[in-house]
Amino acid sequence: MHAEVIAVGTEMLLGEITDTNSQVISEGLAQLGIDVYYHSLVGDNEQRMTETITLAASRSDLVVISGGLGPTPDDLTKQVVAKYLHRQLVVDQEALAQITTFFAERHREMTPNNRIQAMYIEGAQSLPNYVGMAVGNYYQNPNGADFLLLPGPPQEMQTMFEQVAKPLLAKNYAGQQVLTSRLLRFYGIGEANLVTKLADLIDQQVNPTIAPYAKDNEVTLRLTASGSDEMTDQKLLDELETKIRARVGEYLYGYGEKNSLPAVVVQELTERGLTVSAAESLTGGGFQTAVTAIPGASNVFPGGFVTYAAEQKEAMLKIDEEVVEQYGVVSEQTAIAMAEHTRQIVGTDYAVSFTGAAGPDFLEGHPAGTVWLGLAGRDIQTQAKLYHFSYDRQHVRNSAIMAGFGLLQEALTTENFKH
Amino acid sequence: MHAEVIAVGTEMLLGEITDTNSQVISEGLAQLGIDVYYHSLVGDNEQRMTETITLAASRSDLVVISGGLGPTPDDLTKQVVAKYLHRQLVVDQEALAQITTFFAERHREMTPNNRIQAMYIEGAQSLPNYVGMAVGNYYQNPNGADFLLLPGPPQEMQTMFEQVAKPLLAKNYAGQQVLTSRLLRFYGIGEANLVTKLADLIDQQVNPTIAPYAKDNEVTLRLTASGSDEMTDQKLLDELETKIRARVGEYLYGYGEKNSLPAVVVQELTERGLTVSAAESLTGGGFQTAVTAIPGASNVFPGGFVTYAAEQKEAMLKIDEEVVEQYGVVSEQTAIAMAEHTRQIVGTDYAVSFTGAAGPDFLEGHPAGTVWLGLAGRDIQTQAKLYHFSYDRQHVRNSAIMAGFGLLQEALTTENFKH
Repeated sequence: MHAEVIAVGTEMLLGEITDTNSQVISEGLAQLGIDVYYHSLVGDNEQRMTETITLAASRSDLVVISGGLGPTPDDLTKQVVAKYLHRQLVVDQEALAQITTFFAERHREMTPNNRIQAMYIEGAQSLPNYVGMAVGNYYQNPNGADFLLLPGPPQEMQTMFEQVAKPLLAKNYAGQQVLTSRLLRFYGIGEANLVTKLADLIDQQVNPTIAPYAKDNEVTLRLTASGSDEMTDQKLLDELETKIRARVGEYLYGYGEKNSLPAVVVQELTERGLTVSAAESLTGGGFQTAVTAIPGASNVFPGGFVTYAAEQKEAMLKIDEEVVEQYGVVSEQTAIAMAEHTRQIVGTDYAVSFTGAAGPDFLEGHPAGTVWLGLAGRDIQTQAKLYHFSYDRQHVRNSAIMAGFGLLQEALTTENFKH
Repeated sequence: MHAEVIAVGTEMLLGEITDTNSQVISEGLAQLGIDVYYHSLVGDNEQRMTETITLAASRSDLVVISGGLGPTPDDLTKQVVAKYLHRQLVVDQEALAQITTFFAERHREMTPNNRIQAMYIEGAQSLPNYVGMAVGNYYQNPNGADFLLLPGPPQEMQTMFEQVAKPLLAKNYAGQQVLTSRLLRFYGIGEANLVTKLADLIDQQVNPTIAPYAKDNEVTLRLTASGSDEMTDQKLLDELETKIRARVGEYLYGYGEKNSLPAVVVQELTERGLTVSAAESLTGGGFQTAVTAIPGASNVFPGGFVTYAAEQKEAMLKIDEEVVEQYGVVSEQTAIAMAEHTRQIVGTDYAVSFTGAAGPDFLEGHPAGTVWLGLAGRDIQTQAKLYHFSYDRQHVRNSAIMAGFGLLQEALTTENFKH
């Protein structure tokens, strides 16, 4: 059972908007255990639409198309698919009545094109549109690929897909294997290194599969199992995760698509009743912004400082100006003083400090990306750590912010830190 | 001259991430006058990649592929295209030296896979990657379609496409009709309102075209002219912009894809030799992070405070605790005190303060989204303004941050503010 997803719309070929529908549809099909092998995108052109649909139907069991159901003359999807299937378009009287009422109530003129929005391919099911006018179509083809036609506007597409189409697909293609996936999140190890450490597991992958993905400052592994039911899948995933943990468990910080290292650290602080503050130079408040982006951050974070200029490090944090003068702003000593003073002033369990060169220019002779982080804690000796981040200013800042969470996470989870 | 854009990556077929590269590439090709007829998306599967590439090369003059150049075993794009072209892969020694240095400097282990990132198709041009490791490829094919291979990570792809590939394409496919576009950025007016004020211009659009687009907290208008050369296009764009300015000029704050209200405000402060500080509660440092994201921010921003807890507003900013107790944290009086005290303590020309309920919970009886902003300035009376933002926590915070820049922008550009 293979599906193919097609998006229709010239505006996407011109790069004016991004096709997000195909991603949403693919995600939903994966949940139903339906494999997707191709996405295509084609403009509002009858000939090229016909070619694309013909190719898709020749190599897939189900063709899902979004877009081209609207009321303008360049909306051709239903017409092209009907022609391909040698079928007529017929009117969904209920949908037509709704459209007519809509215009009457608003005292607006209904155009002949609006009538087309209520039409569907003879022999197909007309799918109601709860947030727009154009009906969808689901055509089960005894002689070839099935077709599912959905509207293009993302909200209309999503509502129809979730509420109307997915239950139909689940019913008609039941008995497919169920796909269950688990996302593991790693910090502190690069993609190439992670993949090398897991090389044999990745080479041997059949079920579950292992898909590494490098994001900004972290790497994720998506494990996907395929079985008769979710419980079987979860057991397969557990077994594979155990093997992965044995090799790179120290870098695994959390699970799931909506998770992040800041979220995990804030949750850990909350559970243990601990607080944190910060003094930020090159990151300009980014660490504190990330902490406070998490709902409930007020339990762990009372406040902190953005000490961008050297004199503000002295003024706000009461750091001896001789420390900054003797060792420089980008130094172990300044990072340590910033962290310790901040912790004392704000009265928190931990304080993290950030000082360095974000770029693009050198700072005190240090190239962009040279960053010192400090961590002061109630029960630990204050530490400072030197980093060399790369690429551009934004990446240096983001890397430093994540490193701050990494330091805290390390302090929270290992005893090694206390030495 | 027709191009076809292909994205490679199984994670996109599974719906885990959205392909944004194809949109960016299509937009760039449109600017060069190169028509795009199809997008395709295929997984990391040699057979299906070969089929997709073969089809694309059979119907297009240029095939642009993003993704599959990374260091993992499922990155196959270069290998598949080389095989299709009956060519070998050869090493770009310069790129290899850079990759080797990168790992050596960081004392990290280089894997054999990293070496593949420095390889290119024999006879192609190896395209440097300024923000990552994998080189791109541009292969001019005397016997068929040309190929342009770009990396998958969006930042790497965009940098290589803009800085390296587009100039090559412009040179090699000259003589096409030139598309020139201009992006106008608006703050303080919603999309529906903007479109209504420009309704007749939008209805009559032929050349230039007008494409409105609502982003988070701002609206953009893309004007696109099509002519024989860029100068003709620019003249058409100037004429249309003059008409637009006459109606909604007060909301127009800047131009261009890479611009932002924070960038415009920081530049304005820089040019006038003025400085700003901030005290942030609900925004948690986000305003200061946005200020310092702009290179050169140290000229205008010495530092500021994140006063998340009420007691830190008193401790850090020396605000009379009676003000907070009597009027509450979410109040005009607290916003004013925060701004005035911050300006005095840090000694800047301006200070902006942020206090309110980010959500999801109520704060002091105020629903999420209730936000007071304060603005103190050397020559102006301190102002506080009440906002009611909506949607979720992140949107409330972002809206408040942008409103802070809006207030500053207003103070910097109008005399009305001084009353």
